[in-house]
Amino acid sequence: MISYYFNLFGVVMFAISGALAASDKNMYKDLFGLSFTGFATAVGGGTLRDIILGSHPIAWVADNNYLIAITAGIILTIIFKRQLTKIPKILLVFDTIGIAIYTIIGMEKALALHVAPLAAVIMGLFTAVMGGVIRDTLINEIPQIFRKEIYATACIAGALVYLVLKYFSLPDLWSAVISIITIIVVRLTAVKFKWSLPKFEV
Amino acid sequence: MISYYFNLFGVVMFAISGALAASDKNMYKDLFGLSFTGFATAVGGGTLRDIILGSHPIAWVADNNYLIAITAGIILTIIFKRQLTKIPKILLVFDTIGIAIYTIIGMEKALALHVAPLAAVIMGLFTAVMGGVIRDTLINEIPQIFRKEIYATACIAGALVYLVLKYFSLPDLWSAVISIITIIVVRLTAVKFKWSLPKFEV
Amino acid sequence: MISYYFNLFGVVMFAISGALAASDKNMYKDLFGLSFTGFATAVGGGTLRDIILGSHPIAWVADNNYLIAITAGIILTIIFKRQLTKIPKILLVFDTIGIAIYTIIGMEKALALHVAPLAAVIMGLFTAVMGGVIRDTLINEIPQIFRKEIYATACIAGALVYLVLKYFSLPDLWSAVISIITIIVVRLTAVKFKWSLPKFEV
Repeated sequence: MISYYFNLFGVVMFAISGALAASDKNMYKDLFGLSFTGFATAVGGGTLRDIILGSHPIAWVADNNYLIAITAGIILTIIFKRQLTKIPKILLVFDTIGIAIYTIIGMEKALALHVAPLAAVIMGLFTAVMGGVIRDTLINEIPQIFRKEIYATACIAGALVYLVLKYFSLPDLWSAVISIITIIVVRLTAVKFKWSLPKFEV
Repeated sequence: MISYYFNLFGVVMFAISGALAASDKNMYKDLFGLSFTGFATAVGGGTLRDIILGSHPIAWVADNNYLIAITAGIILTIIFKRQLTKIPKILLVFDTIGIAIYTIIGMEKALALHVAPLAAVIMGLFTAVMGGVIRDTLINEIPQIFRKEIYATACIAGALVYLVLKYFSLPDLWSAVISIITIIVVRLTAVKFKWSLPKFEV
Repeated sequence: MISYYFNLFGVVMFAISGALAASDKNMYKDLFGLSFTGFATAVGGGTLRDIILGSHPIAWVADNNYLIAITAGIILTIIFKRQLTKIPKILLVFDTIGIAIYTIIGMEKALALHVAPLAAVIMGLFTAVMGGVIRDTLINEIPQIFRKEIYATACIAGALVYLVLKYFSLPDLWSAVISIITIIVVRLTAVKFKWSLPKFEV
């Protein structure tokens, strides 16, 4: 039940992130471009996860509340966009909380369907980052996960922590909370100290 | 039954639209590039809809007639492309009829599977426009739905009209015909008077 | 059973091809970009096929060995990339063997699910080439299948040969071997003699 409202909260956050990114680009500035980008950012990751898992119906197809949450996010963006663009650090924090929650929600869903553990890690990662990949592709930028900060790596780290804690039979709620905190700490620390992964020269 | 032939007619139209767009671009001018773009344009929207709805088998996978219709569209394009490019207005009319029919076919399919009403609107929209999005992405142009004319908005307007008429228990055929006419009128009027949606400045 | 190991071998090859392509591009040079591109190249085609066919669970979701094979391919790329880039001809041969095997594996899977014969040809083609399309899209290049050499055409030729041989009731193994050889011969001959498909001028 709590995870349902967490999920809707994440949907609003990602819809804002998508609509805001679109409103920055000339070609997507109209109401449709804004809404489409917000929509695709909010549900893209979870939709791809459910399609790969073959899990139907997909949440937003069966439940109007998701599309209402997205509409709320888009309206908030239009009204408050001037204020929102002035506080990039708050957006970073919200985005980080969003991907942390989504990673664990995605993993739990995959594990409940008895997928291979490594595939569950990828399903958690997809849930968290694929909406953003679709957003960045739509506005014609290199997806954030491929730019230098630790982003996907934080999700993968948290997902692996979750697997280990579950293996040692920690209660699910504790595993989830510890993993979510792991992702948030890794990501914010990486941003602060400008960590990045090693590069390979050919 | 009629809707089956309508559907195949739409497939031919969209295949022509895709093949014609590809033949305009240097890199996609060979037979394979032409055919692939025609194929993806014709079935892309419906395939995405069925994948999201989890509705299998997808029409063109189970029924050879779809691929035969696409082949016909591609052959027509190769033979008549010089004539076709001289009549952009006729193409606009056919494209508009195509997206109008596809919107309502997509909505009816979604509603028959008992999805949330707002999700059915999106399924109708996806059926109509996603083939074109794939086409424009393949030939490396900004998708038509994001350019300034009223395009997706016409489909959404017609889909909402359909929902309202259905709510008031109009017979399905009447609801469908009125909604299709709505889409065609909104789109063609918007093109004629160069209507566009409001833009948002950051 | 043999086809299982063939499949894993193909996964390693495609993972190397993806990781190598990513390491050539500045933006994807870090460990995550490399791994993601290798992963998407290796499983993209088969995943798309299974999603379109509605066939679940998808192999790499249910079976950890696929992700282990991809990891092996990525590690091999990192260790041996200098040597690998010096032998483009060997890579061409491996890639050709890979797409030949994948075409027939994809077709057999589709035909076992009783799809329309022409759709089975497309499913074979998708299995073989869509991983590469995803790879080239990620590294921002025109997909190889749209560049001038005979590439997809070789797969389609082999797939049609397979359909004909099956129609004449040849044993499956013979049909598979002859079709695979057809693809390899057509592709390598086309590369050697720089064959290409006819182009169409508007």
